[in-house]
Amino acid sequence: MSSSVSPLAPKSFEELPQIEGVNFATASAGIKYKGRTDVLLAIMQEGTTVAGVFTKSKCSSAPVDWCKQRIGNGKASALLVNSGNANAFTGKKGAAAVELSADIVAKALGCPEDEVFLASTGVIGEPLPAEKFSGVIDALKDAQGTASWLEAAKAIMTTDTFPKVSSASIDLDGQTVTINGIAKGAGMIAPDMATMLSFIYTDVPVAAPVLQAVLSGQVDGSFNAITVDSDTSTSDTVLLFATGAAASRGVEPINAETDPRIVVVRAALADVMVDLAHQIVRDGEGARKFVEVSVEGAESDGSARKIAMAIANSPLVKTAVAGEDANWGRVVMAVGKAGEPADRDRLAIWFGDVRVAVDGERDPDYSEAAASAVMKEEEIRLRVDLGLGLGTATVWTCDLTKEYVAINGDYRS
Amino acid sequence: MSSSVSPLAPKSFEELPQIEGVNFATASAGIKYKGRTDVLLAIMQEGTTVAGVFTKSKCSSAPVDWCKQRIGNGKASALLVNSGNANAFTGKKGAAAVELSADIVAKALGCPEDEVFLASTGVIGEPLPAEKFSGVIDALKDAQGTASWLEAAKAIMTTDTFPKVSSASIDLDGQTVTINGIAKGAGMIAPDMATMLSFIYTDVPVAAPVLQAVLSGQVDGSFNAITVDSDTSTSDTVLLFATGAAASRGVEPINAETDPRIVVVRAALADVMVDLAHQIVRDGEGARKFVEVSVEGAESDGSARKIAMAIANSPLVKTAVAGEDANWGRVVMAVGKAGEPADRDRLAIWFGDVRVAVDGERDPDYSEAAASAVMKEEEIRLRVDLGLGLGTATVWTCDLTKEYVAINGDYRS
Repeated sequence: MSSSVSPLAPKSFEELPQIEGVNFATASAGIKYKGRTDVLLAIMQEGTTVAGVFTKSKCSSAPVDWCKQRIGNGKASALLVNSGNANAFTGKKGAAAVELSADIVAKALGCPEDEVFLASTGVIGEPLPAEKFSGVIDALKDAQGTASWLEAAKAIMTTDTFPKVSSASIDLDGQTVTINGIAKGAGMIAPDMATMLSFIYTDVPVAAPVLQAVLSGQVDGSFNAITVDSDTSTSDTVLLFATGAAASRGVEPINAETDPRIVVVRAALADVMVDLAHQIVRDGEGARKFVEVSVEGAESDGSARKIAMAIANSPLVKTAVAGEDANWGRVVMAVGKAGEPADRDRLAIWFGDVRVAVDGERDPDYSEAAASAVMKEEEIRLRVDLGLGLGTATVWTCDLTKEYVAINGDYRS
Repeated sequence: MSSSVSPLAPKSFEELPQIEGVNFATASAGIKYKGRTDVLLAIMQEGTTVAGVFTKSKCSSAPVDWCKQRIGNGKASALLVNSGNANAFTGKKGAAAVELSADIVAKALGCPEDEVFLASTGVIGEPLPAEKFSGVIDALKDAQGTASWLEAAKAIMTTDTFPKVSSASIDLDGQTVTINGIAKGAGMIAPDMATMLSFIYTDVPVAAPVLQAVLSGQVDGSFNAITVDSDTSTSDTVLLFATGAAASRGVEPINAETDPRIVVVRAALADVMVDLAHQIVRDGEGARKFVEVSVEGAESDGSARKIAMAIANSPLVKTAVAGEDANWGRVVMAVGKAGEPADRDRLAIWFGDVRVAVDGERDPDYSEAAASAVMKEEEIRLRVDLGLGLGTATVWTCDLTKEYVAINGDYRS
């Protein structure tokens, strides 16, 4: 496995501003990894609301089951995340492990078990030694507030080569409020948020049902619009917590979706979620190129999205990008296999600003040199116009390299 | 690009028996390749019937369009196939090229244009220089009968590392009759017969509608049950020709699907088609392992098939196989992402004869050594029991190696 940082990683990592009402601590419980942190405990102030979106996998992990059963309550006191073991496909042992984990946290913090949210990421099928949390819980409680956002993001990494953080600040009721997020994910990334975890916090007071609506509305355009390898994980989890701490500075609670202030909150949340989603693609296993696939002129947005995903998931398109080969024929192939309405003879394709195909054949002005120059860039925009209707979609992916195969051919062993 | 023969290739290539009523010739037209044959002309006796199955791609190639428009007539006099250029996504030039190709063959042989079938395989988007066929057509006509089945199979290869042939003989009305097939395909292989061509001949006299019914019935279990990379080509074509020459030896024509002799014909055809399909997977780009994925206990056969394909198409499963890693957690992941009915806690998984998971968790008797030994084999059987119903499906794939990425990263350039 390569241990070098992805060439597509951000050039620098800035510390995020504080979010009042939540504190982090990290620890090394030795779940799987040695010499690094592998547990994150976040403690939230009373009244914190929570919303969540989870994997659609039929084989979801034990912590996903735990969270799904409690997300409807809308209340959160703590979040415990471990890396190195996904506690997925672990049967009754898995269910027992989440119960023990929540019990350990609830007892230490004096909060209801149902307000403890859990997430695990790592190997599937190995029993999670949840008793190891007992050994670190007091230290985690005592150390609360000592871990930065960047340190929190580091503790939840698995095959990630860099920690993923993002932040947006907006003005609300004359006060500066903030949305911070962390994420992990590098492989098994596909729509429905394959192996990815993301935890997002805001100090804005938002009622749980509104928080859920806002989160659910932003998932399709961010975490569900990325794909590394079309594989969907058992553990995908996005949790959005609102501590409500800004209320003490005069920010009025948002209790309804009709609140006009929701527009700016939603926009800031979208910025953070799209940024984190992009970072996951930029850390795609073995990735050397960041690819934006835009489809327009489809019969509907849904149809455009299916075609965009067919392109973004095609191993032949992704290997061509890796080879810096302007092989637009493979884009035609991917459009054709999507099974969505398409008229071969109206199709136009661009690599960057270079139109390579139009009216169902190679562009008469096609320049191999110009197209090849685009392919040498680190970020590549690939655009398809179907010429049928007004449907559009944009998704993001990375190239498929030998390094991807190397990383995944000996991950477990 | 690697030029070495796949390690999964058959150890020897046997010449096939003759099929009376069809003759082959091959030539080097210089479409793209140098120093090898790239055109195959088959001339069939009068009365030859034909059936076909084609790609479901919305961006099908010009020769696919040509064949689709004529397959309903059920009559065939000639088949012209070229390698090196797919004549796909070539707009009006592509349509003109197939018309010119058919015209050249029809004039030389004195047959109707509508009885000339065409197939092209190779690069997408480059105009096909059909006029080059003029320069070789007379030589092809004069040489008819000089090319063997193996030589015919070689002329249609692209990234294939070995020619694909298969044969079955059966007894019908006291006579030995034969089914011979050739195929090409190595990448862009997926359900709906991604870049693959196969041409199958029999001397049994079969009426065209019956021939079509028999062919259509065998596709799901053979060419549509294989996947190399989940990519579907614009050019997939399977044509089945019945020369009817065995009629002169007293074999009665099969004119209805109710003819009891159809059972043995169908079984022999299935043998040839499954054998050719397996050979395509064995030549999967970069393949080092042949993988059979069987799903049982699904709610329906269709559901079993979707789950089997989700496993067979998963890059994470395929890279694990490449790495000889008994990573059954990725099989769980693939079952989960298929979106079909599945109960995590009833799932059982076998690698070869080693049960690795049962009742939703690792098998209590799991032996890493035993599972690892299975993964070192060249042929790997992967079996999943969903424990829900009676639905079953079997599909075949290969592993995903660095060589696949290398082959497809610089195929065109």
